[in-house]
Amino acid sequence: MASLIAIDWGTTSFRAYRLSGQGEIIEKRQSASGILAVKDDRFAEMLVSQIGDWMEAEPDARIVMSGMIGSRQGWREIDYVTGQPGIGEIAAGMGRVALADGRTLWLAPGYSCRNGHGLPDVMRGEETQILGACAGLRGEQTYCLPGTHSKWVSVADSRLTGFTTFMTGEVFDVMCRHSILGRLMTGAGGNGEEAQAWFDDGVQKAKAGIPLLSGFFGVRARALFAEIPEAYTKDYLSGLLIGHEIRDARKDQKGDVTLIGSGHLIGLYGRAIAAFGGVATLANEDLAAVGLFQLAGQLDSNR
Amino acid sequence: MASLIAIDWGTTSFRAYRLSGQGEIIEKRQSASGILAVKDDRFAEMLVSQIGDWMEAEPDARIVMSGMIGSRQGWREIDYVTGQPGIGEIAAGMGRVALADGRTLWLAPGYSCRNGHGLPDVMRGEETQILGACAGLRGEQTYCLPGTHSKWVSVADSRLTGFTTFMTGEVFDVMCRHSILGRLMTGAGGNGEEAQAWFDDGVQKAKAGIPLLSGFFGVRARALFAEIPEAYTKDYLSGLLIGHEIRDARKDQKGDVTLIGSGHLIGLYGRAIAAFGGVATLANEDLAAVGLFQLAGQLDSNR
Repeated sequence: MASLIAIDWGTTSFRAYRLSGQGEIIEKRQSASGILAVKDDRFAEMLVSQIGDWMEAEPDARIVMSGMIGSRQGWREIDYVTGQPGIGEIAAGMGRVALADGRTLWLAPGYSCRNGHGLPDVMRGEETQILGACAGLRGEQTYCLPGTHSKWVSVADSRLTGFTTFMTGEVFDVMCRHSILGRLMTGAGGNGEEAQAWFDDGVQKAKAGIPLLSGFFGVRARALFAEIPEAYTKDYLSGLLIGHEIRDARKDQKGDVTLIGSGHLIGLYGRAIAAFGGVATLANEDLAAVGLFQLAGQLDSNR
Repeated sequence: MASLIAIDWGTTSFRAYRLSGQGEIIEKRQSASGILAVKDDRFAEMLVSQIGDWMEAEPDARIVMSGMIGSRQGWREIDYVTGQPGIGEIAAGMGRVALADGRTLWLAPGYSCRNGHGLPDVMRGEETQILGACAGLRGEQTYCLPGTHSKWVSVADSRLTGFTTFMTGEVFDVMCRHSILGRLMTGAGGNGEEAQAWFDDGVQKAKAGIPLLSGFFGVRARALFAEIPEAYTKDYLSGLLIGHEIRDARKDQKGDVTLIGSGHLIGLYGRAIAAFGGVATLANEDLAAVGLFQLAGQLDSNR
């Protein structure tokens, strides 16, 4: 198999990997050039601006992508795969784009299901990371991908069997920036021990069953009575929200959780899952590259 | 008892009542001159600009106020009353402000309790409306005051025994204006039958136990699959949020509910409470005037 250029192209980020024919990561590159940064559908130009040197150096490398680049707002809309797809079904759902020079790009499809609450739910990009994480595994696993729109994904025998999205990160962001709670948030939040203690306190409040809409007002009331220093209200709110997500996600899921992602947020989710009695392990953070490498392998055998 | 000028002075609204010595409303006036509209603490000037003619016409009328005017951001901060106050305790907590001409104004205190979830909670203004609603009643009542920060208040034998605040209205507002859901909201929402049906659908989803953070994302996913027309996503979100508030508020409260407020929102709460099997009755919308009249009566007997 030839070498590969694998790209996880999301709404606000662009992550590219240059892989050997055996799937080793030779080089990686990341920028904030998500699809929102692309004007007038100039995706090809953006691609060259990000990794034109790789493309030139490896004219025969296959280029595969996953993420919002395959959405209606992306380069080309690729239909969601449904049901309980494994790697074969997801690879079969990939779509292609021809560049002006005749080179072909492959875009992974998203995955859509009806979640445990009977509502439609969608992902784009996470399905490829999950493929990278669960390849060859038997039995059932649960994956949590924290973020703006956190996903809790169930896998059985290397097939995605369903998932639920929680808007946790976005709600945190809009409440901090646009609600009355924002006026309290004089601190930056952070890694300090005290910040962590207030995060934990928020998680415990969620665990104790405080309704979220009432818990929001409690942030203000507790600050008003100096039960929380204003500088830590942001950490407390973060714990309250993440605690709510975990409480609800774990109602039907009691086993271990594999966390996919990187950075500070993953550490917070690990703490919060532990507070609920769960065990969280951290996955390799380059799973998109792993999943795309596997999808590329399927293209060779499929077509 | 002399005639009375009663004012419910909140964050964004000013409602004034001119009452007879017997408590009949002779005239009422309302404006958007809440305390946020007052610059440099010029409360006295604002008061004259709103009801200077009444003050001149009735130099002996007592002036009593309730609401955020008694907060740290208001004219003078009046301490919260705590415990399980009846009219006597709330009247005893009133504070005064002397005008330059020697006239005295009275400000009602707010009420603070530890709510059913062990968090501190606060109100300013609602306690006076509740006094107006429950005067002379025996037994237990539940009052719901929908709004930016909705309150569910328990009363026993004309005493406030506790309450919980839900940030429902504010969360609706920030999610519509600042989250990704706002991009779907091309419709104005409204009174139409279809809007009402989508509101009801959101209430049912909350009743079915959908977690709120997941339900938010569901608004987007359902619109994406054309399960909800984009123009009605706002009504659906409103039902989802109000449904969540009612579901949580009614966990410990199964009896009838008296709704305090006015306008379209009260109608929505009535529908949603009915969907949960509750019975909601609508209170007189001038309860602030009724409560302030009663407080003024106590001032005569107390001092």
